[in-house]
Amino acid sequence: MSDAVVLGLDVGGSSVKYRLASATPSEGIPEALAQGTVSTPKHDPVAGLAAIARDVTALHRLVAVVVGIPGLVDEASGTVLRSANLPALDGLALGPALSAELEVPVGVINDGRAAAVAEARWGAGSRERDVFTLALGTGIAGSHIVDGRVVDGAHGIAGELGHVVVEPSGARCACGQRGCLETVIGAPALRRAWNRAGGHGSPKDLLSAYEAGDARAARIIERGAAALADAILTLLALVDPGVIVIGGGLASAPHRIVERAAALVAERATFHRVPAIVPAILGKWAGAVGAVSEARELAGCVVGASAG
Amino acid sequence: MSDAVVLGLDVGGSSVKYRLASATPSEGIPEALAQGTVSTPKHDPVAGLAAIARDVTALHRLVAVVVGIPGLVDEASGTVLRSANLPALDGLALGPALSAELEVPVGVINDGRAAAVAEARWGAGSRERDVFTLALGTGIAGSHIVDGRVVDGAHGIAGELGHVVVEPSGARCACGQRGCLETVIGAPALRRAWNRAGGHGSPKDLLSAYEAGDARAARIIERGAAALADAILTLLALVDPGVIVIGGGLASAPHRIVERAAALVAERATFHRVPAIVPAILGKWAGAVGAVSEARELAGCVVGASAG
Repeated sequence: MSDAVVLGLDVGGSSVKYRLASATPSEGIPEALAQGTVSTPKHDPVAGLAAIARDVTALHRLVAVVVGIPGLVDEASGTVLRSANLPALDGLALGPALSAELEVPVGVINDGRAAAVAEARWGAGSRERDVFTLALGTGIAGSHIVDGRVVDGAHGIAGELGHVVVEPSGARCACGQRGCLETVIGAPALRRAWNRAGGHGSPKDLLSAYEAGDARAARIIERGAAALADAILTLLALVDPGVIVIGGGLASAPHRIVERAAALVAERATFHRVPAIVPAILGKWAGAVGAVSEARELAGCVVGASAG
Repeated sequence: MSDAVVLGLDVGGSSVKYRLASATPSEGIPEALAQGTVSTPKHDPVAGLAAIARDVTALHRLVAVVVGIPGLVDEASGTVLRSANLPALDGLALGPALSAELEVPVGVINDGRAAAVAEARWGAGSRERDVFTLALGTGIAGSHIVDGRVVDGAHGIAGELGHVVVEPSGARCACGQRGCLETVIGAPALRRAWNRAGGHGSPKDLLSAYEAGDARAARIIERGAAALADAILTLLALVDPGVIVIGGGLASAPHRIVERAAALVAERATFHRVPAIVPAILGKWAGAVGAVSEARELAGCVVGASAG
């Protein structure tokens, strides 16, 4: 048998990314012994994910698995509380079920949090102890990570920058409040604003039109940047991070809202200490890297992986 | 010689509170072996504070001192960066200077932070791991304390709830922003609003008039409560504390702004998890208790106090 390995799975609506790495902690990013993508097993996710794990680790001694899930997760019990894209997982005690199949400890984590941990530990935040990550997409997810660990508050919901109110009389948010940051710069909000202004297509088209000098696009970008700057100034006052890492679907292209917001924050800061605002660098593998990283922690806690 | 003791000093503009306790950690609040108040030495603060420490600890074996200071402090170097009420301390490396006089380790801490640590460890926050304390007075000071330790961000300024913007077109704040929470419910702001409305006296008179059914007072209280509720909802989204402890000069009487804000937070919360909002209980000795508590930590780190 070869040395002990850990497996990270990043489960999406249509595909599962896997990454296999040595269980032994490393200074740098956990090197991939194997990495790839397979179809998401939709009907019997426990059997399907167990089969993937067995296939990928056939030549290795597996000691721990962590599964990243798009949805609300109770990490303590390994239960998926709600998963919009994968209804078969709703309410499932995925950790214990997979653990019974694979006979190793299995942790379950929110996929965005896995990606955030990876960016903080190994990616754009790796030079700072105190990192705030922000994923801009349909929703806006924030995570505060200190010394590589998520600071998630008393009830696990800290970091919700997307639900800081920036326009008190603004649009109703899915969360029930009015004028959350998400109602201004979430992808659906940008799309609606762009279409209402007579533009066509998605937020990426809005950004392209802005580059081409479209005045309607400029107004939407400016409003979004002002809202993001307000939220970031509040974040600096309350949390005071050492760096802000911005990723997510909308941030893969140069994101003018983020650039403009960073300029506004620098202009308007008073007592605040303005940290660098930088793009995420791990890309689409961030979630799997974070899951591997968490699996190493799990292995270290539970089975003494260094005995491999 | 008797057992090892630690000394906490809470230095105010006119008086110094001292509290002496055993250096040995305790489950409950550090019991006072001696406690009292003496005049603040204004001209030669190092010699004066050293004399106080020698007097108070004459019968004991002193192993560590922590001094709480009203002002901006660099804890790492024990330097007072700025102290509005005690100009003789400005820029002084108080920790090293006192340590040289007393021949024991001396730490320096902001007095509000000392009180916050005490409330979180031994006072109104002691049953929760994750505590946010808020001191309402001339300024508004916040501290986030997890497992008894201040979470102070990458640059030591986290927790500034008083400088969350709640009225974007509001009054200019001392910090340079417009419409900070402090510009609405700081004591000078409440006094100005009350006098402008035709009332007389201080914020305490405003609160009394409110109790007596004064409609002008009610409008000011309602505006303040709405602003505080906005700031607390933002705090819940970003920090998610397990309890909010409210103290400070303005909170010693029943504070209707706080009560009304708590009701508004409960009404308006959506995804948020609303923690208990409770009054501080340690009163005027909180700062000295916090200083003693920190002095025990310092003794434990540096000199092995248990060898007493």
